[in-house]
Amino acid sequence: MRPSGRSFNEMRAVSLEAGVAKHAEGSCLVKFGDTHVLVTATWDEMTPPWLRGQGRGWVTAEYGMLPRSTNERMKREAKAGQSGRTQEIQRLIGRALRAVVDLKALGERQILIDCDVLQADGGTRTASITGAWVALKQCLNWATSNGIIKKDPLVDTVAAISCGIVNGAPALDLDYAEDSTAGTDANFVITGKGGLVEVQGTAEGAPFSDEQFLALLAMARAGCTDLARMQQEAL
Amino acid sequence: MRPSGRSFNEMRAVSLEAGVAKHAEGSCLVKFGDTHVLVTATWDEMTPPWLRGQGRGWVTAEYGMLPRSTNERMKREAKAGQSGRTQEIQRLIGRALRAVVDLKALGERQILIDCDVLQADGGTRTASITGAWVALKQCLNWATSNGIIKKDPLVDTVAAISCGIVNGAPALDLDYAEDSTAGTDANFVITGKGGLVEVQGTAEGAPFSDEQFLALLAMARAGCTDLARMQQEAL
Amino acid sequence: MRPSGRSFNEMRAVSLEAGVAKHAEGSCLVKFGDTHVLVTATWDEMTPPWLRGQGRGWVTAEYGMLPRSTNERMKREAKAGQSGRTQEIQRLIGRALRAVVDLKALGERQILIDCDVLQADGGTRTASITGAWVALKQCLNWATSNGIIKKDPLVDTVAAISCGIVNGAPALDLDYAEDSTAGTDANFVITGKGGLVEVQGTAEGAPFSDEQFLALLAMARAGCTDLARMQQEAL
Amino acid sequence: MRPSGRSFNEMRAVSLEAGVAKHAEGSCLVKFGDTHVLVTATWDEMTPPWLRGQGRGWVTAEYGMLPRSTNERMKREAKAGQSGRTQEIQRLIGRALRAVVDLKALGERQILIDCDVLQADGGTRTASITGAWVALKQCLNWATSNGIIKKDPLVDTVAAISCGIVNGAPALDLDYAEDSTAGTDANFVITGKGGLVEVQGTAEGAPFSDEQFLALLAMARAGCTDLARMQQEAL
Amino acid sequence: MRPSGRSFNEMRAVSLEAGVAKHAEGSCLVKFGDTHVLVTATWDEMTPPWLRGQGRGWVTAEYGMLPRSTNERMKREAKAGQSGRTQEIQRLIGRALRAVVDLKALGERQILIDCDVLQADGGTRTASITGAWVALKQCLNWATSNGIIKKDPLVDTVAAISCGIVNGAPALDLDYAEDSTAGTDANFVITGKGGLVEVQGTAEGAPFSDEQFLALLAMARAGCTDLARMQQEAL
Amino acid sequence: MRPSGRSFNEMRAVSLEAGVAKHAEGSCLVKFGDTHVLVTATWDEMTPPWLRGQGRGWVTAEYGMLPRSTNERMKREAKAGQSGRTQEIQRLIGRALRAVVDLKALGERQILIDCDVLQADGGTRTASITGAWVALKQCLNWATSNGIIKKDPLVDTVAAISCGIVNGAPALDLDYAEDSTAGTDANFVITGKGGLVEVQGTAEGAPFSDEQFLALLAMARAGCTDLARMQQEAL
Repeated sequence: MRPSGRSFNEMRAVSLEAGVAKHAEGSCLVKFGDTHVLVTATWDEMTPPWLRGQGRGWVTAEYGMLPRSTNERMKREAKAGQSGRTQEIQRLIGRALRAVVDLKALGERQILIDCDVLQADGGTRTASITGAWVALKQCLNWATSNGIIKKDPLVDTVAAISCGIVNGAPALDLDYAEDSTAGTDANFVITGKGGLVEVQGTAEGAPFSDEQFLALLAMARAGCTDLARMQQEAL
Repeated sequence: MRPSGRSFNEMRAVSLEAGVAKHAEGSCLVKFGDTHVLVTATWDEMTPPWLRGQGRGWVTAEYGMLPRSTNERMKREAKAGQSGRTQEIQRLIGRALRAVVDLKALGERQILIDCDVLQADGGTRTASITGAWVALKQCLNWATSNGIIKKDPLVDTVAAISCGIVNGAPALDLDYAEDSTAGTDANFVITGKGGLVEVQGTAEGAPFSDEQFLALLAMARAGCTDLARMQQEAL
Repeated sequence: MRPSGRSFNEMRAVSLEAGVAKHAEGSCLVKFGDTHVLVTATWDEMTPPWLRGQGRGWVTAEYGMLPRSTNERMKREAKAGQSGRTQEIQRLIGRALRAVVDLKALGERQILIDCDVLQADGGTRTASITGAWVALKQCLNWATSNGIIKKDPLVDTVAAISCGIVNGAPALDLDYAEDSTAGTDANFVITGKGGLVEVQGTAEGAPFSDEQFLALLAMARAGCTDLARMQQEAL
Repeated sequence: MRPSGRSFNEMRAVSLEAGVAKHAEGSCLVKFGDTHVLVTATWDEMTPPWLRGQGRGWVTAEYGMLPRSTNERMKREAKAGQSGRTQEIQRLIGRALRAVVDLKALGERQILIDCDVLQADGGTRTASITGAWVALKQCLNWATSNGIIKKDPLVDTVAAISCGIVNGAPALDLDYAEDSTAGTDANFVITGKGGLVEVQGTAEGAPFSDEQFLALLAMARAGCTDLARMQQEAL
Repeated sequence: MRPSGRSFNEMRAVSLEAGVAKHAEGSCLVKFGDTHVLVTATWDEMTPPWLRGQGRGWVTAEYGMLPRSTNERMKREAKAGQSGRTQEIQRLIGRALRAVVDLKALGERQILIDCDVLQADGGTRTASITGAWVALKQCLNWATSNGIIKKDPLVDTVAAISCGIVNGAPALDLDYAEDSTAGTDANFVITGKGGLVEVQGTAEGAPFSDEQFLALLAMARAGCTDLARMQQEAL
Repeated sequence: MRPSGRSFNEMRAVSLEAGVAKHAEGSCLVKFGDTHVLVTATWDEMTPPWLRGQGRGWVTAEYGMLPRSTNERMKREAKAGQSGRTQEIQRLIGRALRAVVDLKALGERQILIDCDVLQADGGTRTASITGAWVALKQCLNWATSNGIIKKDPLVDTVAAISCGIVNGAPALDLDYAEDSTAGTDANFVITGKGGLVEVQGTAEGAPFSDEQFLALLAMARAGCTDLARMQQEAL
């Protein structure tokens, strides 16, 4: 039995609500159980300076947590600055999305993704990636339907899920309580066609074996297949 | 006629939803039309260092805007730091709430209010104050019902509303489009019993007269009476 | 009786000494009793980047306090950064001055006002505004007499004064000792023709009534009339 | 053929020189070809504040690059602050080392590892981990031989190596030129007994398959076995 | 002839006005011609943390320039931070003063010297040191006459002056115009009894010879003798 | 006798190894006994913005210490920012080198010198200057031999050495133990032709006399003559 009462290969209730932000070109409120992330996508007609003149666009992401999204209030990032953890997460989100965008087809524009955690209960980075794809798609739909670009440069969906060894057994989509006690913690970013974009596994206590890692990978594949379907339905 | 189509003394649709945050001791999602602010209240058993040993508590506030809460994306405050405007607003929110709390009765504790603007359409500071009272009240209810304090130190409600001179006429609760063209912009913070806590008026173009200012004050009084009733109903 | 021994509608001894700074285009050493502020005005042939190409100029202000201008030494702002209070004050000074400048007539230039408090005894923000008008005027005289601009873009004088409820009675121009005990604290910025530019009132303890606020406003009007005369005489 | 001329499962010339720093309790100059990292280990009788009173010790790491360790001079980090990449790397080094230290046996002390890249040619994070184990071991030998601790709390060796898909084939220990063109980039941290501590794989262009990832893992296992032997010989 | 019209061994008009600051325990407005520095001395009953428990006191200094103290407005240091030049100067002022204070006799207290340049025309660091001695002495007089310390820990006076090679000849007390064209620039800090505390010489263009440097030193000795007399007279 | 056992006019073993850095246009590993500094020189085809269009080049320096280059670990500068001491040193290194470069002949380019202390045992700033000349020369040789500039703009060598009063007697090239107890500490920067570029003397305890200072100067001259020879031999 796992602490949440879910079966080991069962995700939390997931919802993806597109178009929640009045001002943004794309947006999605994503919920994995009690983890709630507000994602917006901003269309920018300029690429960052280091990329200009190369005929390619860019997709980048920023991530933040509201001070009381967590059980203990965190220092406000506007005062404390961005932590190493925050920077790690936003670099991951950006890489994940760029893996499914044809940057040449996008042309010299940039899409900025903002992922702000309203409430945290484990898995905020994987929820962010999953919701960000929906916001990104809505933003690109806006650009194509307004004639700003001719062809949608998205080549696939991309979703992410966390897994871990809980009480010695592989488990899908850990919540915060499970994550705190997990022996190994892993995140997988997988495209709709099944390609691996990012694989990360970390031993929290004892090292893990190849077999354990492969079991987590198999579980994540099943989860990402479900998420890809929900992403398509959200739009 | 005012740009929003409302009559001059008509507020936007206001909603105050208490208890929206799983982790916080008090919370409120406040909406004034398209202005949406998530407010949380955090109970802290320690006062700030400069107040210790004086037998009094403290209530303070922090304010932030999500990068795409506005029509043009703002730089993320975790990177850009807090602007002068942000600091002005959070000082105002803290003063407004302290005006209705008996800090001696609170004892040597602190309540931290976080106001995060999810979507902005004018009047975010007055919406924040109005919603913050609800979150604060819920937090104090939690403290009394858990026996942490014996008696609720709140002495009154407090609410806030903006007014301005729109097309030459006084108007209540300006939205962003109205605020941008208003000749004079004013904010009023008023207690349930009708006492003035804060009065601020600024000429954006031509100076204003005593008569104009008094007309705005009268309009704000009526608005704050309505808001005080809604605050009581929200809990 | 008020703590300072002054009558309730009596200002402190005010002096405005223009032209005290060798290098600046305009300057004024302003004293309200023991509050001393050195103000300089710097002519800049460039507007800030966000205003370029719009055919308008800009007037902006910065404010600082020397570390031992106060009774307890403050941390040097070059190390501690600018506080929220400092930012609030410098935004106020800039708005006050812009209210009496025809920015179109100024053309695409900027005037930077620096207000540095050499010694503080209450009312530094209102003294700064009052002295800043003198420095600004001297700077514009320099620009017109040197043929840089044809016509002085100043449309009026502007002065400021603080008021408060001291021992239950309205009092003009509070010094630090009075300000610390005042129940309500207010600042008024008023043009030579009597227009209101900025009105700010804050309850320090109990809320205040409309009547009390109007009494402060009347007292401030009389004070600003005197200050406007002294400003004219200073040049 | 790979760009470096090495065979696909061949590491660069590796050297681990212990005891190079006069002042440090442990040190190692590690070279993987033209990648040179100076690692020091500092014994600290205090744990960080958040860990005090729990009867456990801590091992943490900091990482930096000299400005001209790279082909294009980088901005000095003392001026620019630490980048997201730097923070990611130093978190990884710390986690890798803690995986082979019995923190209870260490007691309430801390060991700080500093990894400074004198010259970079790819694989600086994996070289840092491999050299850091040597510096850590030397530091712990110093502590045991001086009677500060009774028993060495190290439970195993730990080493790290990078792999990637170069010209479509899995290759071990990429240098900078190879890394720049690799389709997939992966880092593995593996203990002397063969346990996985950290697994990271990132698609730079096209996503990768499970088979490709397993081929990289097998190659890394062989490399880490060689490195573990060299670590033992270095002391 | 030198640009200022003074003879080569002639200082500018120097004035030292003690007791100018209402709040500070010691103060001095020092003028060397058009260079004006406001110096305050603050008594602090605590030494800095790194010195506690050693039975000794400390004297330290901070230095700043008002934005328009110079011909071109400088960025406000509260926004730009302290430059390398500023830090160099404040370290120099502190060392100069500590050379004439018996820190054991002072006991575990600290005196903080603030030197703020109101107007600059060359030689601000040497004027600061010269004026700081007066403020320091007044502060120590305050402490002895109030019975806080029994015996004045000052063991001598200390003053400073700049010299330089102007048009090929040694010249005393350079103003800004002279300093800008000087081939060599030197500062000397000398006690009342004639001991050297600090000697600094820098070639701005061509290197200088031993003979030239000795000529500057002799000139500075004469100047510091005059300044020591004025310091005694100022109190 | 001096603590190091050396005779009073004896330098430590000095080595200057040129060309140690694969990526840099010039480099030198300089050792004065246990003080080891890695110096690189970077050729930059752009001058800093404030110098553009004046037909002159620039040479500037940055200095840093690895955290465990010292006996007590220092805070990493990337986290703490550059200290006042660091800024003082890097300004000194830059001035010393510019004294022997014809900046007009260099043309509108910049050379950036990085001095990173791998191990410290006193005299890091003078070792840095001495080694930096070697790196600079190698960089300029690279530029002339590649035809980027026609003629080497170096006009002389420049070297530096520290001296001090140890146990009452002048001593050359202090190591850390000697420096800590020295009564006076001085640094001299001298060209190959014997011109003085920089002279700095500081009393650590009692002031010093002209005679003492001249004895240090004579000793430094002899040392710099030896260093100039070694610099020529290093290339």
